[in-house]
Amino acid sequence: MDARSYVEANARRFFEDLKAWLAIPSISADPARRDDVRKSAEWLAAQLQQTGFPVTEIWETGEVPGGMGEVAGGAGEVAGQPAVFAEWPAGDASAPVVLVYGHHDVQPVEPLGEWRSPPFEPAEEGGRLLGRGASDDKGQVLFHTLGVSAGLAASGRAAPPVTLKLLIEGEEESGSPHFAELLRRERARLSCDVIVVSDTTMWSEEVPSMCTGMRGLLDAQIDLTGPDRDLHSGSFGGAVPNPLHALTALLAGLHDEAGRVTLPRFYDAVRPLTEAERTLFAQLPFDEKVWLTEAGGSRATRGEQGFTTLERIWARPTAEINGMWGGHTGPGPKTIIPRAAHAKLSFRLVADQDPADVAAALREFVSSRTPPGIEATVTFDGPGARASHSPIDSPAVRAGRRALGRAFGRDVLFTREGGSGPEADLAEILGAPLVFIAVGLDSDRIHAPNEKVEMDLLLKGAEAAAYLWEELAAAGLGSTAEPRP
Amino acid sequence: MDARSYVEANARRFFEDLKAWLAIPSISADPARRDDVRKSAEWLAAQLQQTGFPVTEIWETGEVPGGMGEVAGGAGEVAGQPAVFAEWPAGDASAPVVLVYGHHDVQPVEPLGEWRSPPFEPAEEGGRLLGRGASDDKGQVLFHTLGVSAGLAASGRAAPPVTLKLLIEGEEESGSPHFAELLRRERARLSCDVIVVSDTTMWSEEVPSMCTGMRGLLDAQIDLTGPDRDLHSGSFGGAVPNPLHALTALLAGLHDEAGRVTLPRFYDAVRPLTEAERTLFAQLPFDEKVWLTEAGGSRATRGEQGFTTLERIWARPTAEINGMWGGHTGPGPKTIIPRAAHAKLSFRLVADQDPADVAAALREFVSSRTPPGIEATVTFDGPGARASHSPIDSPAVRAGRRALGRAFGRDVLFTREGGSGPEADLAEILGAPLVFIAVGLDSDRIHAPNEKVEMDLLLKGAEAAAYLWEELAAAGLGSTAEPRP
Repeated sequence: MDARSYVEANARRFFEDLKAWLAIPSISADPARRDDVRKSAEWLAAQLQQTGFPVTEIWETGEVPGGMGEVAGGAGEVAGQPAVFAEWPAGDASAPVVLVYGHHDVQPVEPLGEWRSPPFEPAEEGGRLLGRGASDDKGQVLFHTLGVSAGLAASGRAAPPVTLKLLIEGEEESGSPHFAELLRRERARLSCDVIVVSDTTMWSEEVPSMCTGMRGLLDAQIDLTGPDRDLHSGSFGGAVPNPLHALTALLAGLHDEAGRVTLPRFYDAVRPLTEAERTLFAQLPFDEKVWLTEAGGSRATRGEQGFTTLERIWARPTAEINGMWGGHTGPGPKTIIPRAAHAKLSFRLVADQDPADVAAALREFVSSRTPPGIEATVTFDGPGARASHSPIDSPAVRAGRRALGRAFGRDVLFTREGGSGPEADLAEILGAPLVFIAVGLDSDRIHAPNEKVEMDLLLKGAEAAAYLWEELAAAGLGSTAEPRP
Repeated sequence: MDARSYVEANARRFFEDLKAWLAIPSISADPARRDDVRKSAEWLAAQLQQTGFPVTEIWETGEVPGGMGEVAGGAGEVAGQPAVFAEWPAGDASAPVVLVYGHHDVQPVEPLGEWRSPPFEPAEEGGRLLGRGASDDKGQVLFHTLGVSAGLAASGRAAPPVTLKLLIEGEEESGSPHFAELLRRERARLSCDVIVVSDTTMWSEEVPSMCTGMRGLLDAQIDLTGPDRDLHSGSFGGAVPNPLHALTALLAGLHDEAGRVTLPRFYDAVRPLTEAERTLFAQLPFDEKVWLTEAGGSRATRGEQGFTTLERIWARPTAEINGMWGGHTGPGPKTIIPRAAHAKLSFRLVADQDPADVAAALREFVSSRTPPGIEATVTFDGPGARASHSPIDSPAVRAGRRALGRAFGRDVLFTREGGSGPEADLAEILGAPLVFIAVGLDSDRIHAPNEKVEMDLLLKGAEAAAYLWEELAAAGLGSTAEPRP
């Protein structure tokens, strides 16, 4: 029986399993759902064991390093929520080692009233499965169980052609607060030649594609202060520096006329798009009108000159003001010069920008542009996240593209994601390249009411996963993975 | 008996009268004090009658025009609070007519805990009289009663050398909401050749001075909108217009490098400072260090190039951002492109700028600088207020300067006020020039706890008022006042 036939023959059982898992409300952001997150981890571990994984473990997170599994904390400190680890060694000890990343926690479900059926009572609706987590990310994690079984059935082997490891975390929807720590703690057991991420989307049902990178992120706040109290603008207006004016001048200078970010050295490390990537991006059937509608009815595009909209959101770094405030913001006038002005900014970063360099450049930018009489402070919300990137000509991406191409019977194009996730930590801490194999769609309404997944795409995902291990084994990744520090 | 001796001889009685008036808590902004505002008006009318004014009247405000004294309103509409009008015709029917303006309402008194003595139990403290309204403006209104009596005593006449009218309003501290309406209604009875305003300050106890103008004001709000909801900055960042960026660019462009406001035609109507004014301003003993301390510890001056700090706050128009907000302003980061951005602005205007012209220029400025994809609206808080101006070489100002000079025995310099008041309405509606005769000090803590007035300065004010009517009569104002439309 070939992989496709196996997948089709076992589809019903697969969807019933998925519905059972989706019924567990594993909302990691809701403290009242901690038991459900654990139940979800236990359900998955049991499912993986049943699939045939010889090793399945629940991994606690937020633990005291070196402690005997004791949960950290005590007063005030909240321990993390459990991840699931599984391993299935290849028959051949020299085969590549592949780590699959995904997550079993889900987003909150508010506003509940907008759901057509209860979020944790999964329902089939014309080829779609509705329910929180159907696409993000339980459906995409679970297709790997069907995929590995299909691969074994098709090949007649007892073990996969690569050593398969799974790490399915339980805090992704809460910002993965303990994930990097977990990766460092378990680096030895997680060691691998390639990381397969199944938590993104394809271009569309008709245009299968692979994500080849996610942007990084740095969050900052700028606070400017002038006088030690609000001043009467009649008595003092026109003669002392106004922090709000200083802020507008500072932030208006954040981009030049070409829409480029003016921080010193901002583009120095940016890895340029290759001509091949630009050509492939341009093949995507992008409809700007539709995109503008999805962009909250935006009336125009605007960004860095010389790049298309897709290049701007996927492959170019940005600076955005996310919030700004100062002075009188209530009804009516109040003729003051305010004592302070504030702005929150975020920078989306691309490979190979270092968030620490960008942070230093922002400090430099602010201090060099703060006028006399104004004091500025710049603070950052954590160290930021690096971008992740997976070059389209790497052996692992080429293997993934072949696997998806076989499953879909179509040419596979490339996309990226403009947002950020824990993928950069995976690549960096484990020192292995990323390959994004996923079948979600942007129309899946993840994080929103009525999240759904296309059921036939999940089956295509399972089939692609079945081929993927063969393709990766054939690519001989063990020898080509670049060593990282 | 000369005027000075009369003032000194009657000082004790004057201060006891003033204390009685100060004990009436005529806070116009406090609806619970409406009876007290009326009581204050009645007290003043009685006092003026006792001084000898043949005509003393309580004038209602906020009335239905043409009504028989019936107070406007009914459901929802609040009638105004009473003004006091008094008139004392000159013996000579061809003598100039002078209108004295002041107000009998006072500021609120919070925070009460900071007063050294209760705000409505006036207390003498080393030559100062403490109490709400002592300087702003009851003390400065009342010195006119002592002044006119002193003038009569010194001259031995039964009537003042000018026809003296007083209009003492009861809503100045509430923004004079019905004052222009009152001026229009009573234009005939208020007709005059010169308006004497006693509601400002002198440079210092040692440097007597006259205010020669107050700035006008226009309040505006700018609202920019982009997408119809906040957008995820990962998915859309770098590719659509961000209203906060548009706002910073717009407002950063409000001034050029020389600190000049860039609104079209903004300076076209501005009446330049004369060389004489600049020379006289420069004679004021201005200590920038002290001024910066008073400016909330501002660390530097900043403003329009080519002008001193005093010129900037008194005689040059400004644009200040009073408040600004948009997007995420709470704790922590939120990576959004906000749907909207807002700013409140105020423009301080000088003679002869028309607030309506500035409003039109702001609309033009905003619409010409709003980038594609952003929609802008500009709204104004009322029509704005014109600046008032009293040229230093006018006969009335020269007469005032002589009167003050005689009282103080010193050279009288000139100042202006950066803030705005109802004075422009007075000049414009009544078509008469303004003369500012006042003895308040910037250190009088008006509008703040522990308001005080220097008692000897009130006596100097009374003495100057005694001389003022002679000086104005001698100046022959009735024939020199410029006719106005």
